[in-house]
Amino acid sequence: MKAEAILQAHAARVDRLLEEALPPASAPPPELHAAMRHLLFPGGKRLRPALALAAAEAVGATPDTALPLAAAVELVHTYSLVHDDLPCMDDDVERRGRPTVHVLFGEAVAVLAGDALLAAAFELLAGAGAPAERLLGASADLARAAGSLALVGGQVDDLRLQEASPSAKEIESVHARKSAALIAASIVGGARLGGGDASALAKLRRFGEAVGVAFQIADDLLDEDTDGACSSVRVLGPAGARARAEELLASALGELDAFGAAAEPLRILARYAVRRDR
Amino acid sequence: MKAEAILQAHAARVDRLLEEALPPASAPPPELHAAMRHLLFPGGKRLRPALALAAAEAVGATPDTALPLAAAVELVHTYSLVHDDLPCMDDDVERRGRPTVHVLFGEAVAVLAGDALLAAAFELLAGAGAPAERLLGASADLARAAGSLALVGGQVDDLRLQEASPSAKEIESVHARKSAALIAASIVGGARLGGGDASALAKLRRFGEAVGVAFQIADDLLDEDTDGACSSVRVLGPAGARARAEELLASALGELDAFGAAAEPLRILARYAVRRDR
Repeated sequence: MKAEAILQAHAARVDRLLEEALPPASAPPPELHAAMRHLLFPGGKRLRPALALAAAEAVGATPDTALPLAAAVELVHTYSLVHDDLPCMDDDVERRGRPTVHVLFGEAVAVLAGDALLAAAFELLAGAGAPAERLLGASADLARAAGSLALVGGQVDDLRLQEASPSAKEIESVHARKSAALIAASIVGGARLGGGDASALAKLRRFGEAVGVAFQIADDLLDEDTDGACSSVRVLGPAGARARAEELLASALGELDAFGAAAEPLRILARYAVRRDR
Repeated sequence: MKAEAILQAHAARVDRLLEEALPPASAPPPELHAAMRHLLFPGGKRLRPALALAAAEAVGATPDTALPLAAAVELVHTYSLVHDDLPCMDDDVERRGRPTVHVLFGEAVAVLAGDALLAAAFELLAGAGAPAERLLGASADLARAAGSLALVGGQVDDLRLQEASPSAKEIESVHARKSAALIAASIVGGARLGGGDASALAKLRRFGEAVGVAFQIADDLLDEDTDGACSSVRVLGPAGARARAEELLASALGELDAFGAAAEPLRILARYAVRRDR
């Protein structure tokens, strides 16, 4: 099976759950609910949700066991993009070929739509039908990945380092917190909902952290703006960045040795995430 | 016992938990962690946490059973104030006699510090030592209270209605979502962690929603800016607003009839919240 087919099949079910979980665009206040949906639908490739479902499969569960976590992670990812695009952050006016949320709805509603997407992630997860211990563990992981020592801290350093010339190590620390932490939470959380044991979760966390950094290096390689302060390509060069991504991918795949055939979709998605050419 | 004494005693233990739960101000990135702590310490009266502890007591538990939820609610409350103060929202430069977070740390860090406080609330709750079912229920309540149909939606309408002359009903709808929902989540969540049954939780939810709106009307009465679009005093007049607050307080206290002496701290705090003169 090809990565694109896995992504497409999984995205349809994730989108259905997201659609059900959020208030309709017409719910009052309508501008808020429309703003929350703007970047979420049609959304991107839904890579993080697909990794969550594949992780549940890797520990022997039906992929859909991980659906609530998969949808919650996509809500957190979307909130972070809405806030990253704000005028006081990256000041981006376009994303995925469409105007950003603050351009269409104003800055205040964009901040608040992001806030509401973050809250919605935890509401969806806490209200899901699954063993409470598993949901709570996934919720703790997700909150940590979204917090000041991970996603938010990475974004603060990303903004701060625009003024500096960060080293390869500093750049990888930003990648680890801003991108890889949420990808790892998606994979570990998916496996948690699938009933994975502590040993499986530890391997999948290392897998997710390595794939997450490699994914971000691949993003830097695809980005035309390789002069960006926090681009791996700026310090390592294209060949060096490519080699580092491959090294991380190999190390990640090594963590999956014990999982056998059940982890094949996860391997396919990991290779795709790191080697995709668009 | 006086309300002030209850508040003071409860605040000390809530503050200790908040202090332990957050990374130190020196944790990297230091400007983010300092910003997260700026409005949280010394903070305000810690009314919402005190209500949570009193609600646990009302259902027969030790007040401290509710500590994780009490601290989580204070984190959500603090996040909402940091974002409300932003230049694109109320543009406030001072709160509790000190410069607001965006004045000291800049707009980007203020948005991100608020984001991180919201995530920290769910991390604290999900990582607490209490039965998973109770923590999960409290987490769902808290996320709903922070979400687009409650706190965030109330803030959007509050901003929107500044241009209009909202009716008493529209103002009460803003109060119910922007203030009362989080107060009710604090009370219901505290009782959940205390092991309250469904019937107790339903009564306490109605209690919390009524007290929450009455609390906000009391705030409008204390506010010198009674011309604010969403001030109850603007549409009802001072005497009318006072009468409406007392009506809601009486209805709230009626919900507590079945709870007996165990709910006395909750009654004291409710009267204080609605009748305080500062």
